[in-house]
Amino acid sequence: MSRGKVAVLGTGLMGAPMAANLLAAGFEVTVWNRSKEKAGSLASRGAGLAGTPARAVADADTVIVMLSSGPVCEEVLFGEHDAAAAMRKGAMLIVMSSIGMEEAQSLAAKAGAIGLRWLDAPVSGGTPAAAAGTLSIMVGGEIDDVRKANPVLSAMGRVVHIGPAGTGALAKLVNQLLVASTIVAVSEALLMAEKGGADPAKVREALLGGFAFSRILELHGQRIISANFEPGGPAKYQVKDTKAALEVAEKLDLDLPVLRLADELFSSLVDHGGGDLDHSALFLELKRRNGVLPAGSALRN
Amino acid sequence: MSRGKVAVLGTGLMGAPMAANLLAAGFEVTVWNRSKEKAGSLASRGAGLAGTPARAVADADTVIVMLSSGPVCEEVLFGEHDAAAAMRKGAMLIVMSSIGMEEAQSLAAKAGAIGLRWLDAPVSGGTPAAAAGTLSIMVGGEIDDVRKANPVLSAMGRVVHIGPAGTGALAKLVNQLLVASTIVAVSEALLMAEKGGADPAKVREALLGGFAFSRILELHGQRIISANFEPGGPAKYQVKDTKAALEVAEKLDLDLPVLRLADELFSSLVDHGGGDLDHSALFLELKRRNGVLPAGSALRN
Repeated sequence: MSRGKVAVLGTGLMGAPMAANLLAAGFEVTVWNRSKEKAGSLASRGAGLAGTPARAVADADTVIVMLSSGPVCEEVLFGEHDAAAAMRKGAMLIVMSSIGMEEAQSLAAKAGAIGLRWLDAPVSGGTPAAAAGTLSIMVGGEIDDVRKANPVLSAMGRVVHIGPAGTGALAKLVNQLLVASTIVAVSEALLMAEKGGADPAKVREALLGGFAFSRILELHGQRIISANFEPGGPAKYQVKDTKAALEVAEKLDLDLPVLRLADELFSSLVDHGGGDLDHSALFLELKRRNGVLPAGSALRN
Repeated sequence: MSRGKVAVLGTGLMGAPMAANLLAAGFEVTVWNRSKEKAGSLASRGAGLAGTPARAVADADTVIVMLSSGPVCEEVLFGEHDAAAAMRKGAMLIVMSSIGMEEAQSLAAKAGAIGLRWLDAPVSGGTPAAAAGTLSIMVGGEIDDVRKANPVLSAMGRVVHIGPAGTGALAKLVNQLLVASTIVAVSEALLMAEKGGADPAKVREALLGGFAFSRILELHGQRIISANFEPGGPAKYQVKDTKAALEVAEKLDLDLPVLRLADELFSSLVDHGGGDLDHSALFLELKRRNGVLPAGSALRN
């Protein structure tokens, strides 16, 4: 028996495995994606395919939005496609894309004005966690709505209610601040180890056992040591995140020097041709600045 | 039956539990400490107490040094106390204090010149890991000596051989660079969360589930949220570490901007009265700079 009807708008790298987990948990799922091919394998697992966002959401108790950016969410929900207007009164709208805090608050207000429930619920953990159903889900919104949405969200990961509407988006920006800064710190650490004559792989191994342990040292540290900069998370998206976090910091009248520095370094990485490399390629930018970029590097000097 | 004779010079907060683990592992342990009281409880567990460093080491296969700084190690081993000269030829000298890379290399050369084996083997994990025997031990020295010392070191933690003499000390500085930088990043993250109207405790909880996980977010994040700045690791020692790391970076002709920034921020924390607070009090320094230090704070404005 169906546990409820869920529409998923956006079945890309993240949205597709999230929809698959909703199907596996027993929800009746209808998906819509801009490019049709991406939704195909979900149909074979039992998902309904809708030709437009409005048709996908018309019958849904819950609508999950996992599109590429705040403006795209805005356009699909309240612009060209006007999907929000097609939702049932009292249905739950959950935007899980990483969007700005003010974007989230503005969408929440628009949703509330036409009688929809709202949650901003961005995630951390990337495609592996999306596939495993172990995403970290940061939720902003009313407590009653978080409770109501809990069965749906729990099918995709671990739910933490952060605070009112917009604070889920804020938590994700804070997450990105921390990820970007830690990548910079890990890059400096491994460069110092390498230049000092230590084996960076051994230093990483030792440091993972102590206070310096971080998921970034574990995962991105390994990428740096293997010189494997296939994305993963492309550097150009990391810059989008540091700029969004800086904007919020400015609105909050906060000077956050590590965030500023991370933004400067990632921007420079992109400016020197590293935008499509994994964000761990910040290590190469650090080498470039220190005049030790190897010949044939993916980065321009 | 004894597995071998080990002398431990320095039985302070770290050295005492390390010596206790050596006793528990079946080594015959003789200890020396500048202030006698600290060695007392080890005697009740079967350790021999020596009145001078020279008497402690005279009969030992392995000498563990866990004194407060490089200069103190130098003084006890080759200065006033001249303990190294009292060691048997071919015995193993293991300095586990956190000392500079050049200090380690200089001590290694002096030890080698009088026929001693040498390892620099600083640790990470603090007093809880010292008590549990789960320290992360970063070892610089010859591979044969690392193998020979492995039973002794393994009684205290997890051993990783980094490279030649001095690279254990280097790895510890790299560790401290990473710890200091991550504390700054976590402080910025939690301040942004707080100022933005989110519950920092909830943000920490959510972020621990994703890519932003770090031991620092887990432990020091909790200290920040509880406003508990009892040390732990006092900020004044963190500054000692960032300065030592900066010195090595300079010698290696490396510009490491996050390390520079962390040094500046921790120095300012100490300058404003936070030297004896836990290093997680960097959060207060960040508040001070942003004009949101609460009245009655432990820090001067």
